Amino acid sequence: MKQINIGLLGLGNIGSGTYKALELNRSYIEKTTGLDLRITRILEVDTERAREFTVAPSMFTQDPDVIIGDPEIDIVIELIGGIEPATSIMVSAMKAGKSVVTANKAALAENYELLTETAASAGVSLRFEASVGGGIPLIGAITESLCANEFTELLGILNSTTNYILTKMGEEGRDYFDVLKEAQSLGFAETDPSADVDGHDLANKLSILMSLVFGTRVHPAEIPTIGITGVTNEDIAAAAEDGCVIKLIASAYRTGENVECFVQPTRIKKDHPLADVKNEYNALFLNGNAVGSLMLYGKGAGPLPTASAVLGDVIAIAKSL
Amino acid sequence: MKQINIGLLGLGNIGSGTYKALELNRSYIEKTTGLDLRITRILEVDTERAREFTVAPSMFTQDPDVIIGDPEIDIVIELIGGIEPATSIMVSAMKAGKSVVTANKAALAENYELLTETAASAGVSLRFEASVGGGIPLIGAITESLCANEFTELLGILNSTTNYILTKMGEEGRDYFDVLKEAQSLGFAETDPSADVDGHDLANKLSILMSLVFGTRVHPAEIPTIGITGVTNEDIAAAAEDGCVIKLIASAYRTGENVECFVQPTRIKKDHPLADVKNEYNALFLNGNAVGSLMLYGKGAGPLPTASAVLGDVIAIAKSL
Repeated sequence: MKQINIGLLGLGNIGSGTYKALELNRSYIEKTTGLDLRITRILEVDTERAREFTVAPSMFTQDPDVIIGDPEIDIVIELIGGIEPATSIMVSAMKAGKSVVTANKAALAENYELLTETAASAGVSLRFEASVGGGIPLIGAITESLCANEFTELLGILNSTTNYILTKMGEEGRDYFDVLKEAQSLGFAETDPSADVDGHDLANKLSILMSLVFGTRVHPAEIPTIGITGVTNEDIAAAAEDGCVIKLIASAYRTGENVECFVQPTRIKKDHPLADVKNEYNALFLNGNAVGSLMLYGKGAGPLPTASAVLGDVIAIAKSL
Repeated sequence: MKQINIGLLGLGNIGSGTYKALELNRSYIEKTTGLDLRITRILEVDTERAREFTVAPSMFTQDPDVIIGDPEIDIVIELIGGIEPATSIMVSAMKAGKSVVTANKAALAENYELLTETAASAGVSLRFEASVGGGIPLIGAITESLCANEFTELLGILNSTTNYILTKMGEEGRDYFDVLKEAQSLGFAETDPSADVDGHDLANKLSILMSLVFGTRVHPAEIPTIGITGVTNEDIAAAAEDGCVIKLIASAYRTGENVECFVQPTRIKKDHPLADVKNEYNALFLNGNAVGSLMLYGKGAGPLPTASAVLGDVIAIAKSL
């Protein structure tokens, strides 16, 4: 059994989900991969918070350098979120020879070159399947199984909050603010929902996908972005009369050497596979010049689906160590 | 640029598609992977057949040992199909130190242990993304991104011929034999369609998935299998009245330590994601204990989608050489 020591940065919702999923599937992972994955240190300020599991107090630290400087740690999982200090900590960890797994779309969208170039020059792995589409295995599919394709089109429903709101407005004729309030009480929307409803979260994810699918770096601020706050029940009813639903879509198209991309509320024909992606589900629709049309569908958020992607990346790195 | 020499076994529909896709995307693959993939020898009896591309006559051989014994060849792509002689040739190639990529579901379902154990003992790679679901990146997803999940459920529409027939019977009220004839003229169904319509092709694919998803070897002959020849327009109409469509489904469920599996025409509720998988499209629906529900959807057959999966496997192996 190969033992892999992990430093976990952040024990909030996603961090706790990752800890729990590893405990839940520890014996399955050991049996199928021969890997003994051990979280040995955790960076977290809130050590007193009620959790569904018990962590030895000696595992906690409030100093990232304790984890970065720990020679026993092989892989760092970054689940703090936000651009800083997450970016600086990831860069320091990679320079110290540790591979990094992150779910942090904001840091990746802002600092894609810095992070990927640091990984390359340090000779370590940086993996981020969980940063786009939660548990849906889309980054692995694009970079590995589908890598012989030149892509021409990308359409993504990759923000659960806005998809939940638009689905309920459409199916139940309810008002935007009414559904938003419900989504907040169910934990699908943040207290301050602006990053989601204004489309900026989706622009971050599209920025990451542009690098992977089209090899084109586009900063999220350069992506024309319209959120869903202007979508009315009348717009949705008018779309339905034309056989369409309205979805918040991240889109990109290649025409010759050019790739254009947008985030905006978009009419989708009811017979398109994306039309049936409802509520908190996400999906990525791609068109490749060999594979044709393809859709990857699943839960785009939530602690356990995100943990599935994080642990898949951890195992991929651990196998190569 | 790393040069990888490939021996291609079979230049029929899928073999020609693979050759063509490699030519089409050669410069893209070189740019994105740094790999110079060269098909240097081709096993094919029919050297005179009209093709959309020209192959130097000196590349053809009718003797597999010429390819197996060629020290310059790194990877063998097996696209002959059928259990034998394909299995024996793959085993010999692996014993000679060559990695193998295959789309051959019949050989894999019949000889899974022999083929995977030969690869392991010879220290080479055996990859077969194209054997199930054509271009859909499902084997990569199961074995890599999703490998931290214990799966509880699998439902697959993974045979294009039967899905085309059932879709047209349902949507157009047409008769089985009428649609079958059309599918044959469009190239979606074989002249002898029995392996498809009797469910045996799908049982082969389910057998492969059982090993990957549940770690359980089930020979296709052990899978209870019912095809679509007994499905009537009346059955489809009765299902529609209950809000369902009828699909030929490969299914498997885990209950405790037990896994049960079947191939049979199955009622699927119209709001289930699989209900909208129509005509020649395929999809695999999975339930994992961390990721939740997930669906991978795309073209499950055809020369170029299959080539996408074959070349993805070739590139994965080439990177590791």
